[in-house]
Amino acid sequence: MKVYLDNAATTAMDERVIEAMIPFMKSHYGNPSSVHSPGREVRTAIEKSRKKVAELLNATPAEIFFTSGGTEADNTALVCGIESHGIKHAITSPLEHHAVLHTLEICEKKGMIQLSKLDVNEKGELDLAQLEDLLKNNPNSLVSLMHANNEIGNINDLHKIGSLCQEYNAFFHSDTVQTMGHYVHDLKSLPVDAIVAGGHKFHGPKGSGFLYVRKDKKIHPFIHGGAQERNMRGGTENVIGIIGITKALELAYSEMENHHNHVSSIKKHFIKGLQEAIPGVSFNGLSGDMDQSLYTVLNASMPPSEPNRGMLLFNLDLEGIAASGGSACSSGATVGSHVLRALNHQPERDAVRFSFSRYNTIEEVDYTISKLKELYTVEA
Amino acid sequence: MKVYLDNAATTAMDERVIEAMIPFMKSHYGNPSSVHSPGREVRTAIEKSRKKVAELLNATPAEIFFTSGGTEADNTALVCGIESHGIKHAITSPLEHHAVLHTLEICEKKGMIQLSKLDVNEKGELDLAQLEDLLKNNPNSLVSLMHANNEIGNINDLHKIGSLCQEYNAFFHSDTVQTMGHYVHDLKSLPVDAIVAGGHKFHGPKGSGFLYVRKDKKIHPFIHGGAQERNMRGGTENVIGIIGITKALELAYSEMENHHNHVSSIKKHFIKGLQEAIPGVSFNGLSGDMDQSLYTVLNASMPPSEPNRGMLLFNLDLEGIAASGGSACSSGATVGSHVLRALNHQPERDAVRFSFSRYNTIEEVDYTISKLKELYTVEA
Repeated sequence: MKVYLDNAATTAMDERVIEAMIPFMKSHYGNPSSVHSPGREVRTAIEKSRKKVAELLNATPAEIFFTSGGTEADNTALVCGIESHGIKHAITSPLEHHAVLHTLEICEKKGMIQLSKLDVNEKGELDLAQLEDLLKNNPNSLVSLMHANNEIGNINDLHKIGSLCQEYNAFFHSDTVQTMGHYVHDLKSLPVDAIVAGGHKFHGPKGSGFLYVRKDKKIHPFIHGGAQERNMRGGTENVIGIIGITKALELAYSEMENHHNHVSSIKKHFIKGLQEAIPGVSFNGLSGDMDQSLYTVLNASMPPSEPNRGMLLFNLDLEGIAASGGSACSSGATVGSHVLRALNHQPERDAVRFSFSRYNTIEEVDYTISKLKELYTVEA
Repeated sequence: MKVYLDNAATTAMDERVIEAMIPFMKSHYGNPSSVHSPGREVRTAIEKSRKKVAELLNATPAEIFFTSGGTEADNTALVCGIESHGIKHAITSPLEHHAVLHTLEICEKKGMIQLSKLDVNEKGELDLAQLEDLLKNNPNSLVSLMHANNEIGNINDLHKIGSLCQEYNAFFHSDTVQTMGHYVHDLKSLPVDAIVAGGHKFHGPKGSGFLYVRKDKKIHPFIHGGAQERNMRGGTENVIGIIGITKALELAYSEMENHHNHVSSIKKHFIKGLQEAIPGVSFNGLSGDMDQSLYTVLNASMPPSEPNRGMLLFNLDLEGIAASGGSACSSGATVGSHVLRALNHQPERDAVRFSFSRYNTIEEVDYTISKLKELYTVEA
């Protein structure tokens, strides 16, 4: 049996997304910046996509910019947010994705900003009192705090954080890569200045993404060149990527309730099954709490086990089960997860992130639990 | 009849490229940074692609970085070339693509560099004696001069420019977007430090590109995030884009001679036909000279004609003929071509760029000439 439980790293593309993209590979190939009819046809498709994304998020088309993915969108929001708004101080947390952390650290290294990182407790919860203090003492800050953590699933309260940012006039960027397409983002009521998406996290294509920037917080471009994306991003548009991410978001919104229910039931089943099968298992961050974490992510902290130590992901892979030790984006590195390190996770326990999608089944979860049980029984 | 003569703006995708991409949409969806088997499978495909591109260009895989396109690759080479090598002075020309010009102008505006622009004559030829003077007087410069111009087709002598750069220890970047896949780039003998590609200019997908940086001129990343692209570009890889651009380059190299011959014969036929049909037509830049210009680009300067003035592209479009007034990337702007302006092109003459691909036929060219003849006879 092949079981893919690494949907926070990337998801399988929806057949309907592929179908929407193919005409733009096979026949509609004009350059959207060209003024002739093959160009205008593609331009129309892009602007319709922008309108659709804006509509789903309750934003305006002028606030949506297509990018090559979540990382480029994060870089754009941060670097250009800092430069365009004369920002000298930024606040983030040690649990952010490297697209945010590394970008802000580079800005600090270049002397553009001073960088403050919030304290987190062992469950990965942010200290919002500290955030308020920092905002009070540093007018015109940039705040970058993710909507939900990609490794431990913790959901931050964007309304609470955003209200603080508004109160102290801060530019608030949130990395929403893990929640886009899985939760509703209503940008009329959500007090954020910039959020991002990566299409491949919700059954769209890799290499697609978008950035939302609130219209009264305009920023300058990150990639310079032609006048594409309303002068906000040079470079011929990744047309199939734009068509794909839009279709994926449309499907995600129209099927969100079913998706949420199905995936939640899988996660619940998995939690219960793991607890029964593996005595001593616990869950990192808030991922064991259905109300405070992504319904798509469960980060299991396995009891110490000599035969599995450091080999657990490999052993699962041999059984056809794809899971992850942390963010895929840093798995090439030899260091472990920076998120679990910030939580003081005990190194003698193996951490495995299981992440689910609408394509997973209860049978797959049961298979995974039975294999885990075998792996952890060997030792006894 | 529908005739697409805007191949310098973008090209139709090759069916074989689409076929190569589809399995990575339908089934091979793992995240290449994941360590499990679905991830490793995709990682292998990416590294094979990198190796193939390197092999075709006579470079090493460690010198090839996949990007979201030519513009991002140019931005990376320029911004990070300047920052990584402590460069304070850059040299370019007014004929460069905006991906280069705007990027360097922004670097100047930020105070990172002083920017010198070479003089050009009315044919768009660069003053290389001036280049040498500038290099002599400004040690540790960055030089960015394109291989061939996208509007007027002029080919610059990269060997001559590169040798000067080597002599004066300059970092030499060349925007090779218009020549990649159409000419052989042998990076063992070509004295360049950085070149770029955009897949959609040679029948690959939009949103794909790569950057070559010579191994002894390493630069730091432009987009920060995960450890992708050997720590050179954060962000989950656009896998289908990488597969697509590689397949397109492979096909371009294996069929280059046929392609060159076929397209050259079309351009020659078009030049001759136009000269016969439209008295007073001339050709901008060196585009009328088969030896000194791209075989893919012909920029016609039409005789003054009141009924067509400013309407020529529109009139052609009505006849099903897609051609361009300049770079597609700036056609959204209300200002005319910056390249033709630099050449002092007479504003009373309409300039039309016709650009060809292996999919064009002599019949299409004859149809286009006959329609132009009609348009220009009306007046007489």
